[in-house]
Amino acid sequence: MYYYEDFHVGDTFDFGPLSVTEEEIIAFARQFDPQYFHLDPERAKDSIYGGLIASGWHVGALFTRMYVDGLLNEMAGMGSPGLEQIRWQQPVRPGDTLRGHLTVVEARVSKSRPEMGILRVNCEMFNQDHELVMTIVGTNYVARRKED
Amino acid sequence: MYYYEDFHVGDTFDFGPLSVTEEEIIAFARQFDPQYFHLDPERAKDSIYGGLIASGWHVGALFTRMYVDGLLNEMAGMGSPGLEQIRWQQPVRPGDTLRGHLTVVEARVSKSRPEMGILRVNCEMFNQDHELVMTIVGTNYVARRKED
Repeated sequence: MYYYEDFHVGDTFDFGPLSVTEEEIIAFARQFDPQYFHLDPERAKDSIYGGLIASGWHVGALFTRMYVDGLLNEMAGMGSPGLEQIRWQQPVRPGDTLRGHLTVVEARVSKSRPEMGILRVNCEMFNQDHELVMTIVGTNYVARRKED
Repeated sequence: MYYYEDFHVGDTFDFGPLSVTEEEIIAFARQFDPQYFHLDPERAKDSIYGGLIASGWHVGALFTRMYVDGLLNEMAGMGSPGLEQIRWQQPVRPGDTLRGHLTVVEARVSKSRPEMGILRVNCEMFNQDHELVMTIVGTNYVARRKED
């Protein structure tokens, strides 16, 4: 199990791959984001995206799934207060295979909760053509290692 | 159908209500964010949240659902390039009933795509106790009304 003390500015982690199907894109859109360019492959051709694209919230959730599988579930994570600057740089389309890359850019102990560290992380997500599809600057709470 | 010209700085919109169940919180977590405080009601009691809470991506997706039903599907929306700042101010818990509030804070025509307007919006989400649970500063593309 990784604790706050195990992370340092400049550390990087790679996640994935994770693929997404047309059925998954439509199912997510039907539940959470039923705009036609996320929901209807035919009508989506007339959008500025030229075809069906995943909801931005779906793309973020897919990054999170890779992040949890690849790191968060092996670290003493305590959640997150928020994110800065989400950029959907390129659409995610049916059949895309996604990978994640994370860089620790800041690490400090919480003033109000000294048992907890706060990591600032730069997140990048790429598709199978190595195109950058999303960037996020995020914050994660992580427990400090208990002294014996 | 609402176009860019129909929006003005200071305009406000109310969305919802929308409720979320424990089953939905767990189903989302299982698919996208399988951290124990989103997934396991018993273990979640030992987290800093004191019980099961919805994934932040789920909370954002629920806001989006209310936003689409309450406004986006009646406007000539063209997607979003990103968000500036998400803050999960308070946990969303099983059985919560959520409402959304949106304020237009900036409106301008795109320089690169003059057929399109860009709205900057402040989003707030409240629970049934009128507690602020999430804030987002977001950006939406919206088509300009075609001249006859």
